[in-house]
Amino acid sequence: MLLQRVLFALKAHNVRYPWVVCSDLLLGPSSLSFRSHTCGELRSDHVGQKVTLCGWVQYLRQDLFVILRDFSGLTQVLIPQEESANNLKAALCGLAVESVVKVTGTVRKRPAGQENKLMPTGEIEILAQNLEVFNICRKLPFEMKEFVKKSEALRMQYRYLALRSSQMQKNLRLRSQLVMKMREYLCNVHGFVDVETPTLFKRTPGGAKEFVVPSREPGLFYSLPQSPQQFKQLLMVAGVDRYFQIARCYRDEGSKPDRQPEFTQVDIEMSFVDQAGIMALVEGMLQFSWPAEKGPLQVPFQVMTYNEAMRDYGVDKPDTRFNMKLIDLSEVFSSTKIEFLRSALSQSEGSIQAICVPSGAVRTNPVKLLSVPETENLLSRAEAKPGDLLLIAAGSLRLPLLGNLRLQCAQLLESHGLSLRDPSAFHFLWVVDFPLFLPKEDNPEELDSAHHPFTAPRTEDTDLLLSEPHKVRGQHYDLVLNGCEIGGGSIRIHKASLQLHVLKNILKEDPSLLSHLLEALDSGAPPHGGIALGLDRLVSVVVGASSIRDVIAFPKSFRGHDLMSHAPDTVSEEELKPYHISIKWPTEQRGGGGGGGSAGK
Amino acid sequence: MLLQRVLFALKAHNVRYPWVVCSDLLLGPSSLSFRSHTCGELRSDHVGQKVTLCGWVQYLRQDLFVILRDFSGLTQVLIPQEESANNLKAALCGLAVESVVKVTGTVRKRPAGQENKLMPTGEIEILAQNLEVFNICRKLPFEMKEFVKKSEALRMQYRYLALRSSQMQKNLRLRSQLVMKMREYLCNVHGFVDVETPTLFKRTPGGAKEFVVPSREPGLFYSLPQSPQQFKQLLMVAGVDRYFQIARCYRDEGSKPDRQPEFTQVDIEMSFVDQAGIMALVEGMLQFSWPAEKGPLQVPFQVMTYNEAMRDYGVDKPDTRFNMKLIDLSEVFSSTKIEFLRSALSQSEGSIQAICVPSGAVRTNPVKLLSVPETENLLSRAEAKPGDLLLIAAGSLRLPLLGNLRLQCAQLLESHGLSLRDPSAFHFLWVVDFPLFLPKEDNPEELDSAHHPFTAPRTEDTDLLLSEPHKVRGQHYDLVLNGCEIGGGSIRIHKASLQLHVLKNILKEDPSLLSHLLEALDSGAPPHGGIALGLDRLVSVVVGASSIRDVIAFPKSFRGHDLMSHAPDTVSEEELKPYHISIKWPTEQRGGGGGGGSAGK
Repeated sequence: MLLQRVLFALKAHNVRYPWVVCSDLLLGPSSLSFRSHTCGELRSDHVGQKVTLCGWVQYLRQDLFVILRDFSGLTQVLIPQEESANNLKAALCGLAVESVVKVTGTVRKRPAGQENKLMPTGEIEILAQNLEVFNICRKLPFEMKEFVKKSEALRMQYRYLALRSSQMQKNLRLRSQLVMKMREYLCNVHGFVDVETPTLFKRTPGGAKEFVVPSREPGLFYSLPQSPQQFKQLLMVAGVDRYFQIARCYRDEGSKPDRQPEFTQVDIEMSFVDQAGIMALVEGMLQFSWPAEKGPLQVPFQVMTYNEAMRDYGVDKPDTRFNMKLIDLSEVFSSTKIEFLRSALSQSEGSIQAICVPSGAVRTNPVKLLSVPETENLLSRAEAKPGDLLLIAAGSLRLPLLGNLRLQCAQLLESHGLSLRDPSAFHFLWVVDFPLFLPKEDNPEELDSAHHPFTAPRTEDTDLLLSEPHKVRGQHYDLVLNGCEIGGGSIRIHKASLQLHVLKNILKEDPSLLSHLLEALDSGAPPHGGIALGLDRLVSVVVGASSIRDVIAFPKSFRGHDLMSHAPDTVSEEELKPYHISIKWPTEQRGGGGGGGSAGK
Repeated sequence: MLLQRVLFALKAHNVRYPWVVCSDLLLGPSSLSFRSHTCGELRSDHVGQKVTLCGWVQYLRQDLFVILRDFSGLTQVLIPQEESANNLKAALCGLAVESVVKVTGTVRKRPAGQENKLMPTGEIEILAQNLEVFNICRKLPFEMKEFVKKSEALRMQYRYLALRSSQMQKNLRLRSQLVMKMREYLCNVHGFVDVETPTLFKRTPGGAKEFVVPSREPGLFYSLPQSPQQFKQLLMVAGVDRYFQIARCYRDEGSKPDRQPEFTQVDIEMSFVDQAGIMALVEGMLQFSWPAEKGPLQVPFQVMTYNEAMRDYGVDKPDTRFNMKLIDLSEVFSSTKIEFLRSALSQSEGSIQAICVPSGAVRTNPVKLLSVPETENLLSRAEAKPGDLLLIAAGSLRLPLLGNLRLQCAQLLESHGLSLRDPSAFHFLWVVDFPLFLPKEDNPEELDSAHHPFTAPRTEDTDLLLSEPHKVRGQHYDLVLNGCEIGGGSIRIHKASLQLHVLKNILKEDPSLLSHLLEALDSGAPPHGGIALGLDRLVSVVVGASSIRDVIAFPKSFRGHDLMSHAPDTVSEEELKPYHISIKWPTEQRGGGGGGGSAGK
């Protein structure tokens, strides 16, 4: 400690190198800094020490105290009252809030009875001896304490002020820590290689959600990729063995609200591994990186098949923090006389299902439609108690109606004070055995990839690829946290012949568009698989944020705008010239004419 | 070891979780994998062990050996010759090179005299007992051993094959390790926060090198930023205190060769710090992350002022691995009668300088132009010995002529076998005290920022900002390694009034374009500074690569093309519609007409 103070003094006198030579002694958040401590760390152990703090003026109190803030917390600075310190007193009392200062002083115990137990530094205060004003806060768009009441738009415009809140500071720091631990786990524990892949890429055919980037060659465009999928597979073909990247990805969702046009995924790919290996890796990574203050994470996570998820929760990403599972009542109504129920049961995958909302009904509703045995059978099957509400739906098993209703009921019950889901609980769940293909929405006779065309079939289902492809299950796994899909991955097809069959014969796509991938698979591709986790979503669930915007430093608005810098912005036709593009204004488009000045006659 | 094998056996039988529970025992590059070891790690210590290797068939030898390869090296597999193993023998002998296999067998010592000392695994071989062929290599564009002879274009097209070379594997792994250690140093040692900043940003006015990204709103464009400069300063205003990011940046250099349109920088910003603090931080970071096999790095690095660099080396990024400094001969010729020398000396900043190339001349050249005292004076001043070559230039001090000549001479001498620069030496150098402003190239009466308009002046020069701005030195520092500029940074202006003065009165720029930054500085900005290191360049110097393409997994070609996937590519007018742009083909442009089909008559 003495040595540290000696070094600090040397540094204060602009002696440049001693503290580097002894750098082991000057680590942590105040290394190489004008301050000796942060505003959040002083305790009664420090009483008597001379310290230097740097920070923002949070507020002044009674011309006696300045409360100083930095990222780590608050410290109370006592303004000296004796006459000899009049200049210092005047300077301190005149500080505008949010001004940035350096205060040197001595740590002292607060007088008995004046401790603040709610404040981590509440046992002490700093008797100011010196003040340097780095910057005066001359202008704020509004008072900081009014900030939370301001509109979202205003808070986005002054994002750098919003980020000063302790919550945003915590969110950004937790995110950084989580990612750092993930990297340590992947790199240092399991020998993964962090490889950067290009973001100026080729447009995926039909990739309607891909931003285009004009090049200086007429008519040629790069595209910002939605994920490094092709590159990570090529890295396995290249023998990189274990790849990861915290990858920036892009998706142009147009006007879809609450989507960020750029987002981040934890992207992982591994050779010579099976599905269980990837799942164990991800479990280990989350356990390793999980913030200590959120309690330990139990592994392995629960595993559920897609069919089980759909049957019990009516959705492929169930929130397993509460029960209220779907109850199959098809048998109860097997000989019902009610016409719409009979008709529902007669269709393919038709069923009658219910959820039982505990205490969901104020009084028992007599169900006039049902016969007495049906009612009795129904109530016993649903294990419904008096006061419970039964919601019954009839139709295709695949319809998300009851799954959605289940979540809405939970929200409704919670908004009425019922504690259904523990807000501090984290329920991780793997969903596996997805169908490899699903009927196309616009043409149910044809098949589409349930996830993407590179997913390998389950080995025991491979033969079905030729006969009944719709029955094939994929080696795909989704990771769900508290009902949010936070990741998905698969073992990939590593043989060119199988990949070609899937593309050409099942998906009816033009395989020449992926010729470089097919060629790569034929040059010696190892078995491989991987996963991608949505980092923004994962962090937002971990910190309990209502939007991913709360875990991103500079998010875009609902409409994809940066309200602080005004992006996107206009660009002159002159500046577009090197890119060989011109703007097609909607009116001209309606007029059906060409571009430029020739639109008239 | 026994436990490890038990766990491995359990895993081989698809028992999923035991090795997770005991995960401490199954770490490293073969964790969770089909293999028990990599192809580079077996030694005579392993003799007698049953092992499983996965890898690529490097080559076959005499129907006796298969050489198996993975990222870590090569292992020799012995093909069993006894009759009972005929099937296995046939399978192994029939393997096409670059096929991917799993081999199980027993480690044995090579027979005496057959060890290969050049091969890390050369003491042992694996007696094969089992083979699984994962994938047959059916097609290679050429033989792998011919690869290095192929054209750059072909090697880029088959990049995944180029990456299989041990050199590229090493480069990518060294890069990953270096970055990982940098992160550990910044995050874990000094409390930095890894914050991601947007890459869909607003176009910088006049930012001719910024790619544009059309949005779905007519006439509005995002822009891919050249660096996170504005965001990192705003993060300091936001109180984040210590930010870093391994940031993807974009620069559209058009047709400039050997530039990558996207590149990566280690981006750092700190509050409450001075120039010496940032320099010490970077020195510590490089020392901490420096690859052990490159020898220890000495800190502090040498520091040189801009004026010293220009005077002694004729360049602001001197290669200090060799001497051959510039010698000022102005005094020698102070009363010369040679007209062009007199004229050179009479101009502003005019001088006569020389470099002395040791043994650069085969025989002494009689210099007929010079008088005897001039020649004697000259030779003594240059400390030239018989056989040395003196290159003399007269003109402005700022011309890069002799600086370039010095480097070209070094190359020339080295190409003739002289060892001038130690290829294993790493000379780091800080260049400081740059002028804050330089005369504009097209109009020397006006000033431009030497680096960028946010650089703070040296405190003692601040007053000159009003009177003689061209004399102001900036708090800017460049980091040079072996004559390559690998980084640059500065202490920033943190007061709005000063920033406004620089923008408006000195640079004559429209300050409203940076109004959000000026407003931010007035809301309580701390003193701050930072640096950005060019990661691609740094890694390429460390590994001794001739191009940054050798340290990037999927680089673009000279012309900015991805030759593997064919990016950039055409996009249909239909797909451009949502972005309200159309292509302006050069011929149409020349014709002056509009777009689309209306171009004719």
